[in-house]
Amino acid sequence: MKIIRTVNEMQQTASSLLKDNKTIGFVPTMGFFHEGHIALMEHAKKDTDIVVTSIFVNPLQFGPSEDYEQYPRDEDEDIRHAKNAGVDIVFIPDTQDMYPRKMVINLDITDRVNVLCGRSRPGHFQGVVTVLSKLFHIIQPTKTYFGRKDAQQIAVVDALIEDLNFPIELIALPTVREKDGLAKSSRNVNLHKNEREEAPWIYKALEQGRQLVVDGEKNPDIVVKEVLDTIDNHTSGKIDYVELLSYPELQPISVIEQQVILATAVYFDGARLIDNLLFDKYGNIAKRLK
Amino acid sequence: MKIIRTVNEMQQTASSLLKDNKTIGFVPTMGFFHEGHIALMEHAKKDTDIVVTSIFVNPLQFGPSEDYEQYPRDEDEDIRHAKNAGVDIVFIPDTQDMYPRKMVINLDITDRVNVLCGRSRPGHFQGVVTVLSKLFHIIQPTKTYFGRKDAQQIAVVDALIEDLNFPIELIALPTVREKDGLAKSSRNVNLHKNEREEAPWIYKALEQGRQLVVDGEKNPDIVVKEVLDTIDNHTSGKIDYVELLSYPELQPISVIEQQVILATAVYFDGARLIDNLLFDKYGNIAKRLK
Repeated sequence: MKIIRTVNEMQQTASSLLKDNKTIGFVPTMGFFHEGHIALMEHAKKDTDIVVTSIFVNPLQFGPSEDYEQYPRDEDEDIRHAKNAGVDIVFIPDTQDMYPRKMVINLDITDRVNVLCGRSRPGHFQGVVTVLSKLFHIIQPTKTYFGRKDAQQIAVVDALIEDLNFPIELIALPTVREKDGLAKSSRNVNLHKNEREEAPWIYKALEQGRQLVVDGEKNPDIVVKEVLDTIDNHTSGKIDYVELLSYPELQPISVIEQQVILATAVYFDGARLIDNLLFDKYGNIAKRLK
Repeated sequence: MKIIRTVNEMQQTASSLLKDNKTIGFVPTMGFFHEGHIALMEHAKKDTDIVVTSIFVNPLQFGPSEDYEQYPRDEDEDIRHAKNAGVDIVFIPDTQDMYPRKMVINLDITDRVNVLCGRSRPGHFQGVVTVLSKLFHIIQPTKTYFGRKDAQQIAVVDALIEDLNFPIELIALPTVREKDGLAKSSRNVNLHKNEREEAPWIYKALEQGRQLVVDGEKNPDIVVKEVLDTIDNHTSGKIDYVELLSYPELQPISVIEQQVILATAVYFDGARLIDNLLFDKYGNIAKRLK
């Protein structure tokens, strides 16, 4: 496995690989790998010739009051995990190399962002699409892999690829969970002990909401209330939002009659956790993004 | 020569060419070819394996009061010219295929645009970078070619490629001129007879300004005044601007001590014309962009 630390070398390496007719599978990350990341890398390995994963804690996608400094980092462990997962290249650029000057060109998003996490994280997804545009041009992947836990991010990347015609296939893989159902996240390590014990109720609550739809419920408000109440009753967390929206358009709906996302974010003292389910009007978990 | 009319076919064709290890030279245009366009295509032909030129009058880069409808079009002639110039593929997408829905992702420019043409054409360069981002992803060029007549556009494309790490080399070729010095432009055909006779004074005026710098002038205001007065005295046009700025940063300067652009735009009744010179602090025409 190769470790590349400069934009220039990564871009030239990718160009050479493409000239050799290799397909490139790309897993963008902020590091501190858990099984969710590993699953993406392993899937990419089966799917493409060369797997590249990037580790870059992107300052642009953190708000001024957010956890950029506190975001967990462990480069040595990450490198070990990536190697075990069959990754061919780990790209670890530094911030100065990624953002050598004040950007003249910026990416803006006018839709899919004023809901869910976008509402409480203004500018977050702008930072995400900006860094991804750069990484897509540097790594020039054939396919790129995301976990469904970041479903809003996937909806935004889907728009980025479609609107700007990136020649890249977006693959969204199922959320990887702990045995008790908690979605794997780099931030889980920051939960206090009692919070860690309560946190599985987030997934349980979403599943209870989905069950209402399986049982015939079409009213999004009733489903959302079920999730809100369940999380509220079983955890000490402060609910940021529970929303049910069309997917991937992320528009409010009054009747559940298409593919939807049921999503929540909960503030604990140690970390803010997110989770979601994508399902159709019958409550069946979605197989595809659209 | 192949004519491709859909985004999908163009992108797949480009991907196949890259798999065959061909280099792609790309000349983006709005059609109605003149010798300026042809020179770019011929240069690309010497430089790369496959030359692609696009013909697309991009609605996004025209303001509501601008000449989108009046912009001259002649597809048959363009195809004939492209063939003669050795172009391999002409890409002529329709507007619906390029913009199938309201864009969720938009490109924004925060610098290099509130001067020169950008000042009187708000949103113009946003439209330019948006369509170019799309075309770059569809055509996947190794190199892309622009004429220096559109020097502000080149400065903006330079920022686009650099800020977002596009794996593309930007080539800027000298402005092609009529024998009397008038910069070739698709819009020249719309000039009235007397305007066409006066129009060469635009280039003469810029050359007089540059001559002052050759003779030792360091004060941009004096150079600008020379150009303003000369155009004013010899044409019936209404001057939009005459500016002298650093290049490619396009910042105002108080002393000429680096590479600069001396540029003007003049409204005639029949058309708005632009022209510019790029030169160093001694008044020598610039060989490179930076």
